[in-house]
Amino acid sequence: MRPVYIVGAGMTRFGRSDFSLVDLAGTAGLAALHHAALSKVPVDAVVVANMGGSRINRQTALGSALVDRLALYPAAAEAVENGPASGASAAKIGFQAIGSGMADVVLVVGVEMMRAVDGLEGTDFVASLSHPEVEYIYGVTLPSLAGLFTRLYMDRYGVERKHLAMVAIKNHEHAMHNPYAHIHQPITMEGILTSPEAVVNNPPVADPLCLFDCCPVSDGAAAVVLASKEIADRLGGARVRIAGIGQATDTHAVHEREDPTELRAVRLASQKAFAMAEAKPGDVDVVELHDAFTILEIAESEAAGFFKRGEARKAIERGETRFGGHLPINVSGGLKARGHPVGATGVAQLVELVWQLRGEATGRQVEKAKVAYACNFGGFGNNVIATVLRKEER
Amino acid sequence: MRPVYIVGAGMTRFGRSDFSLVDLAGTAGLAALHHAALSKVPVDAVVVANMGGSRINRQTALGSALVDRLALYPAAAEAVENGPASGASAAKIGFQAIGSGMADVVLVVGVEMMRAVDGLEGTDFVASLSHPEVEYIYGVTLPSLAGLFTRLYMDRYGVERKHLAMVAIKNHEHAMHNPYAHIHQPITMEGILTSPEAVVNNPPVADPLCLFDCCPVSDGAAAVVLASKEIADRLGGARVRIAGIGQATDTHAVHEREDPTELRAVRLASQKAFAMAEAKPGDVDVVELHDAFTILEIAESEAAGFFKRGEARKAIERGETRFGGHLPINVSGGLKARGHPVGATGVAQLVELVWQLRGEATGRQVEKAKVAYACNFGGFGNNVIATVLRKEER
Repeated sequence: MRPVYIVGAGMTRFGRSDFSLVDLAGTAGLAALHHAALSKVPVDAVVVANMGGSRINRQTALGSALVDRLALYPAAAEAVENGPASGASAAKIGFQAIGSGMADVVLVVGVEMMRAVDGLEGTDFVASLSHPEVEYIYGVTLPSLAGLFTRLYMDRYGVERKHLAMVAIKNHEHAMHNPYAHIHQPITMEGILTSPEAVVNNPPVADPLCLFDCCPVSDGAAAVVLASKEIADRLGGARVRIAGIGQATDTHAVHEREDPTELRAVRLASQKAFAMAEAKPGDVDVVELHDAFTILEIAESEAAGFFKRGEARKAIERGETRFGGHLPINVSGGLKARGHPVGATGVAQLVELVWQLRGEATGRQVEKAKVAYACNFGGFGNNVIATVLRKEER
Repeated sequence: MRPVYIVGAGMTRFGRSDFSLVDLAGTAGLAALHHAALSKVPVDAVVVANMGGSRINRQTALGSALVDRLALYPAAAEAVENGPASGASAAKIGFQAIGSGMADVVLVVGVEMMRAVDGLEGTDFVASLSHPEVEYIYGVTLPSLAGLFTRLYMDRYGVERKHLAMVAIKNHEHAMHNPYAHIHQPITMEGILTSPEAVVNNPPVADPLCLFDCCPVSDGAAAVVLASKEIADRLGGARVRIAGIGQATDTHAVHEREDPTELRAVRLASQKAFAMAEAKPGDVDVVELHDAFTILEIAESEAAGFFKRGEARKAIERGETRFGGHLPINVSGGLKARGHPVGATGVAQLVELVWQLRGEATGRQVEKAKVAYACNFGGFGNNVIATVLRKEER
């Protein structure tokens, strides 16, 4: 297939927005188009990633709405929904549009406005991705699945609550250097785990997960501009290629998996992405993982092949996954602190990695980053997309 | 790009379903897979078209859910939403997946369960595709837009209510021969227009449109299996190629169009599809148009290039668009009588055309059909996908 490049990236600050859903998407889209500086090259297609617009914001056909807001007619357009992995799904669809030759330039925008709903409605909304007959109707929610998963992982691999806290503390620290992050609040081991006040600061959500093990509920939008090689060659800036995309699904119900601690879809998707990119985990310089819950950063880093099963906690103890470490993970702050507007997350991961590979991640730039990896985790691990980006010298 | 074939097609009967959304999608998916008789060839990807699952049925991530229901893991999967054009959008995404080389076999399923909502909620749900700030908040609905559009079209092109009624009568008659159609009810000019009882049988909905000018609210699912040439060559049955797909967008708000009676997106999408297919409107043997309202069949048949502006009503008077006529339109019954489960419609159009090209449309087979055309109309004409299918001799 034809090679595909990311030639522009932009996002809104995640947090709470007073914009409409369409305007929020448009703001990120404009930022990415400005970054790409396409000049007179038309956008052939728009792909919008969104999960909750119809239910939460009473807005459907977001692709068409965004084309209108940015006056991109007659560009092709649609919206894509794949739960929390909607963002990477949209990028994959854009990748295939260019790869097939049907488009030369595709604008991919992920957007979500979740803060409009109250807490219980928001939890129910996200839980609508679970199995309707054997999970949802019994009151299963994403935090409850993550709590059960964490307990199993602790029992089997020696992960302790301090490791979970280390992930949260690291990602909050990273987010302090990301002006687009939802949460700018440094946290400490004393404050969330070891002091007498910790249980007040950091109350249980779904045992053993506490408040600071869970991502916040955020509004936000993120966008990337994909282009063919011919277009990318005409533009300035470092050239970032989508070297590989892999996707895999697993059983809908988590309890149907032979080993529920094995994130099979993360493993398969990553293997496919690395194979397409002709790369291996050891080649990667900077990583974005889907830490909707702290345990997921640990488990995904193992399933993707960066560490052996049970070894990630040791790497965390040694500080390897911090900014400045051997394999910096979630330098953006991750879902934990950058925030998690579900439809936007997969695109925001790519935005961060593009900035890193172009040397534009001011204040948090990973030195000499050439190969980057992202994991966007849908369902509770039943639909995962792994992406490998590579900086190409001109 | 690599050529793409439709190697299997199937659907549920449209109407009212007691299934769950996932089971309804699965039923159509299984029918298409059975029709394709792939044997041991795996499905690489699943694309589900759906508009209202999140809001109406409390089910998101339908792609992942369907993979699980049909045990197709680790196939890639996502859901696509493009209002009433979601079905053709999903088919286009599958087309690009195979065209790019990322997949060899893709299952495309369109599904909608709309009858679970009451009338007003259903009308509001569909209206959520309109412009949020200049249409939706003023109470604009799709029937109201269609009513205004019809009045303009009548004034400008001499279309009369009898022409609208002829479209409805024809499509109801066609549906009598389609066991998958929602409505099996022959109607007459006397019954809906000229007799004293007509105003009772056929009350106004949005003047000048009456009840029998509007499609019903339906549940239903439809599916096609797309495959690469290599796979298609191994299978039996006539070989149907997706020869061209064109898509175009227009202003979101209908009143912003310079000439609101010009369906610009239909014209552009059709031109692109015919150019890709190296075909012209005169080559087409059988047509599926998006007659959510009777006026749309007339206007689309002109915008797509089958008739000059203002000439479609004459062709209808001459019976040219009836089964057995020169250019049979909506032999399936169309949205008017087959029904319009919004996410399923674009796929159902392809299902009908595949059956026609394979010579399998028992009871309504268009003789020697070789080239087929479908128009799937999103928004109120702001996002349109045209598809040209061609039967290839083996």
